[in-house]
Amino acid sequence: MLSFASDYIEGAHPSILEALAETNLVPQPGYGEDAYCRRAAEKIRLACHAPDADVFFLSGGTQSNRVVISALLGTVEGVISPATGHINGHEGGAIESSGHKVLALPHRNGKLDAKVLRSYLADFYADRDGYPHTVQPGMLYLTHPTEYGTLYAKEELTALRQAAEEYRLPVFLDGARLGYALATPSSDVTLEDIARLTDCFTIGGTKVGALLGEAVVFPSGTAPKHFFTHIKQQGALLAKGRVLGLQFDALFTDGLYQRIAANAVRQADRIRAALGKLRVPLAVPSPTNQIFPILSNEDAAALAQEVVYTFWEKADEGHAVIRLCTSWATTDEKTDALIAVLRQVLGGR
Amino acid sequence: MLSFASDYIEGAHPSILEALAETNLVPQPGYGEDAYCRRAAEKIRLACHAPDADVFFLSGGTQSNRVVISALLGTVEGVISPATGHINGHEGGAIESSGHKVLALPHRNGKLDAKVLRSYLADFYADRDGYPHTVQPGMLYLTHPTEYGTLYAKEELTALRQAAEEYRLPVFLDGARLGYALATPSSDVTLEDIARLTDCFTIGGTKVGALLGEAVVFPSGTAPKHFFTHIKQQGALLAKGRVLGLQFDALFTDGLYQRIAANAVRQADRIRAALGKLRVPLAVPSPTNQIFPILSNEDAAALAQEVVYTFWEKADEGHAVIRLCTSWATTDEKTDALIAVLRQVLGGR
Amino acid sequence: MLSFASDYIEGAHPSILEALAETNLVPQPGYGEDAYCRRAAEKIRLACHAPDADVFFLSGGTQSNRVVISALLGTVEGVISPATGHINGHEGGAIESSGHKVLALPHRNGKLDAKVLRSYLADFYADRDGYPHTVQPGMLYLTHPTEYGTLYAKEELTALRQAAEEYRLPVFLDGARLGYALATPSSDVTLEDIARLTDCFTIGGTKVGALLGEAVVFPSGTAPKHFFTHIKQQGALLAKGRVLGLQFDALFTDGLYQRIAANAVRQADRIRAALGKLRVPLAVPSPTNQIFPILSNEDAAALAQEVVYTFWEKADEGHAVIRLCTSWATTDEKTDALIAVLRQVLGGR
Amino acid sequence: MLSFASDYIEGAHPSILEALAETNLVPQPGYGEDAYCRRAAEKIRLACHAPDADVFFLSGGTQSNRVVISALLGTVEGVISPATGHINGHEGGAIESSGHKVLALPHRNGKLDAKVLRSYLADFYADRDGYPHTVQPGMLYLTHPTEYGTLYAKEELTALRQAAEEYRLPVFLDGARLGYALATPSSDVTLEDIARLTDCFTIGGTKVGALLGEAVVFPSGTAPKHFFTHIKQQGALLAKGRVLGLQFDALFTDGLYQRIAANAVRQADRIRAALGKLRVPLAVPSPTNQIFPILSNEDAAALAQEVVYTFWEKADEGHAVIRLCTSWATTDEKTDALIAVLRQVLGGR
Repeated sequence: MLSFASDYIEGAHPSILEALAETNLVPQPGYGEDAYCRRAAEKIRLACHAPDADVFFLSGGTQSNRVVISALLGTVEGVISPATGHINGHEGGAIESSGHKVLALPHRNGKLDAKVLRSYLADFYADRDGYPHTVQPGMLYLTHPTEYGTLYAKEELTALRQAAEEYRLPVFLDGARLGYALATPSSDVTLEDIARLTDCFTIGGTKVGALLGEAVVFPSGTAPKHFFTHIKQQGALLAKGRVLGLQFDALFTDGLYQRIAANAVRQADRIRAALGKLRVPLAVPSPTNQIFPILSNEDAAALAQEVVYTFWEKADEGHAVIRLCTSWATTDEKTDALIAVLRQVLGGR
Repeated sequence: MLSFASDYIEGAHPSILEALAETNLVPQPGYGEDAYCRRAAEKIRLACHAPDADVFFLSGGTQSNRVVISALLGTVEGVISPATGHINGHEGGAIESSGHKVLALPHRNGKLDAKVLRSYLADFYADRDGYPHTVQPGMLYLTHPTEYGTLYAKEELTALRQAAEEYRLPVFLDGARLGYALATPSSDVTLEDIARLTDCFTIGGTKVGALLGEAVVFPSGTAPKHFFTHIKQQGALLAKGRVLGLQFDALFTDGLYQRIAANAVRQADRIRAALGKLRVPLAVPSPTNQIFPILSNEDAAALAQEVVYTFWEKADEGHAVIRLCTSWATTDEKTDALIAVLRQVLGGR
Repeated sequence: MLSFASDYIEGAHPSILEALAETNLVPQPGYGEDAYCRRAAEKIRLACHAPDADVFFLSGGTQSNRVVISALLGTVEGVISPATGHINGHEGGAIESSGHKVLALPHRNGKLDAKVLRSYLADFYADRDGYPHTVQPGMLYLTHPTEYGTLYAKEELTALRQAAEEYRLPVFLDGARLGYALATPSSDVTLEDIARLTDCFTIGGTKVGALLGEAVVFPSGTAPKHFFTHIKQQGALLAKGRVLGLQFDALFTDGLYQRIAANAVRQADRIRAALGKLRVPLAVPSPTNQIFPILSNEDAAALAQEVVYTFWEKADEGHAVIRLCTSWATTDEKTDALIAVLRQVLGGR
Repeated sequence: MLSFASDYIEGAHPSILEALAETNLVPQPGYGEDAYCRRAAEKIRLACHAPDADVFFLSGGTQSNRVVISALLGTVEGVISPATGHINGHEGGAIESSGHKVLALPHRNGKLDAKVLRSYLADFYADRDGYPHTVQPGMLYLTHPTEYGTLYAKEELTALRQAAEEYRLPVFLDGARLGYALATPSSDVTLEDIARLTDCFTIGGTKVGALLGEAVVFPSGTAPKHFFTHIKQQGALLAKGRVLGLQFDALFTDGLYQRIAANAVRQADRIRAALGKLRVPLAVPSPTNQIFPILSNEDAAALAQEVVYTFWEKADEGHAVIRLCTSWATTDEKTDALIAVLRQVLGGR
């Protein structure tokens, strides 16, 4: 059966498997001190135009969020996030488990507006008697692309950064799917912009061609004291760190990371075009590799006979939002097959 | 200046000070194993009609919430609370600090509706793929009176209890101001009802006549294993536990607890009547010892010249919600003086 | 029955009860912002010759240790303590519960030697490959008097301070029984010395005449950011903070704190003299209000018929170490009675 | 340069890389619900003779220890471990960070004796007044092989198990190098024994031929409620769980796991024999893949010119304990080369 369930249903880009095989028996020190991690970090610094960046390699997205956020916050500080932020839902309470509240603010299509942020902060500090009794805002968490596949414009990101700076809040951008953002033609935000506008961000490997792995980047070299030990403590330090270094080394060679992400976006654009012709409404105007059609419950059930997709949420009693997801590995043929199924199932409505 | 800022601006009911003085030099074992704690626990069991109840005495409300909730929840469980619940705001992130998410649900005047609870739980478990990745609902937290001074009817509390039982969620009722609820003439909920409809609840002393102290009651004797050690670990075990035991012993002798609370409600009723005559709208229809008038910003400023009150929240750009609070110690004379001020400041509108 | 079980078997010094009664109905703001807390803090600053000190009032010793240590340590830092330190034993894992390891070092009669500390730190950092994988030493915890009633000399404390400073470790001194140290004639350490040689220390009230309460002092005004909120979060903020402020106000008026402690030490000296004449060996040469005789199991059992004491530890199969404890409230008559019992029970050996 | 620094200096056994390549583009669900994880779990159940076992796949050893221990302990419980246990040192405080104390007991060559355990537990509960104020023993942690490469005999493990059962303590065995234990000819402990004598254990992949991965096995199917969510919360759930499943599938096919481990032990035996002939004393009589020679500081420095090894600890001022470690990937030629170097450097002493 066709699967468009997610961007982590396949293994790794072939060049990663080749790199693993080629270097397999080369002895290397453990815990990220190997030559491949060093080389990958250097390539990432170059790609970000951030020569002083601290770069660490972790295994997954929730892990990276937990490790970074728990290292940056003081005991009574919480992390501001749009309510739809990954840390506020599908991370099993990882942030709270490490002692911190997620301060959820209203979102629009998964994005936080700088005005909403400013208004929250102004009201917070205006309540002079009350605020010392509550969780203190300690940092700002954003996702790009968001959980809804949407993207911040450079102007929006800049406005958020300015608001955060005024209140001395570090900005952390979760880039679990960052490749797909960078590869979206309509986006004006570059990797360099992200390095410039954040205090920390991640470059997701798991969902963009790696077996596993997220690069955690502090672009200005401001990783917290003892961050290595903190990674260890959180159970996030791989003995064979080479496995992560090698993959990012491959992904950041000859622009592979953005190149394979561009394929996913192109395939998603084809699916969006087909849905448009079929007049299927989308719940969110996402330009990246995730598509959120609204289907009647009957259509959704019929489609599930042919395609593996993700149920996203109930739209109303009669309709569901589903998610179709392309990846670096989605071929033209697979997309053709999906479009054919969509036409067949949804065409006669 | 007149102060109606809160119900903790005075010391303790005189009979408590007398009890402290009388017993001062009687040697007693520490850590709550003294004769006064045992006697107070026994009186509370009687008052609750709960002969098997486990009773502990802690110092404050946030402490009690933290200690109880962190003892009852598993590592990945969160506590369901109306969004206005004290644990979700003015406790400095005490629950998250102990590792757990507050699962905030919509409220009405500070109260959670059983239908809202059921709908949340049904939707939660309906998302079969998603829910194992998220915080698991582990217990229900309610306040009575609520932060807005409102009260659950027996029917409402019963419906919440039933919903919770179906989903095997223990019910914990925060009674920091419980005395004022029990003393409200229009309320049909008794102490015995609360003992019957919850797995754990607190009887607030600090705000109802004690210097400090909350009784934590597990009416069916289901205190978690090692709860004594847990109290110690959380820094909540007083060496001279007698200080807490003596106060609750006094409060539960001859119905003192409800008697002094009734005075506060009576004084609040007089203030509500006066505000009604002045056609001052109330933000919330609270029948207990807290009153929430909506004033123009100018009136609020004028009143602040004569009376200490609590700013509650912004109603709109031109208006504020303030809180006036009576206590067991509020005298007729003091209320008379407040009413005179209210007439003078707000009468000419 | 005579009780020498601890220094918290009685209530409070009468002047404290008087102060509570006198001020009982004076309205005061909550949460430690009352006039009594301010006044007490000022008196403590004066007594410590530390005009910039930050002073907070908490309820108990374990609570103060937990609140201070969890506020001062980073996520991967642990607290160095002599193995007998209160935080390493009878606090129910309070420090670990807040996420931090107690790094226990060898002790002598409850005291840590500066050479032992230096040797530990030198070895720690010498293991260049290993130490980044382990808990980082983040602060030094000492008790004075120690759990064995022993005292640091000024020279010893100075040497510990110097070692800690070289490794940039803040020094925190737990003074749960500080009064008894200050009142010991043979001690050359003053309150001013302690303020000068530590970054934070506590002045125990509970065991030195108060109903409850510890003053937490940062003598150089270096309380961590958001410390008030941290206190709240840990469940350690009393609504009626006045209860704590009033007590320390009384204790720091006219030298009451040291004066009542001196009585306890004097009574303990009398008991030590009596035990010496009876040739009862002491497990530890403690000069303060705690005495640790070694008795045969038979003698210990016989004594238990007449006096409540604390079993301390097994000395060997046939002998036990017990603890006798005097307090601010121990009268000459009570000590006379104890000495008479000791002579009777232990005299015929 | 020759490296005998650890058993994680190489990549993975070639059959693992082949399996990754072969299955690379087969779509699979995420989060461990793929066909390979299921297959690997089934093979592990068979190998353990534990048909009801719950099996989970995590990334690393510290992570597995943290995830399992924090799931099994209540809030006031600690984990008993020999003082040399990995959790008590080189895990950056992972256990304390999740809220629990490591209760360290004396060891012999890294092993805990059942008599020591029983004596500790008997004394603990004998202190009736004291123990409720302290951390409660909640489980037993063992390593096999230990950090010193030593092994428990079946009789020893059985005695520990019996003691633990009497005190109702679950037994958790950390098998980060379990393969090398199972492959040691002189050991009488089988995988089946371990499944029978523990409540949970891990099968280390990272150090025995995998790129990364530890299998966490609850042999009697007693994994804690919500364990999947707990894994997620701790940041330990890989989106592409297939990466772990595939590796254990390969390792548990045709006895690969024990077969490749046997090579390491055989090479280590050859090195031990060579050191014996050179009359080099060993710090610990380890029969597995780790060897701990004691060298003069001069010899250690000379050897470091030719071989990468691990400095283990100072033996005395003039001598060091070093560690030489073989692995599944150590060839006869490499061992020959090491032995030649050892003869040359240490032969002329």
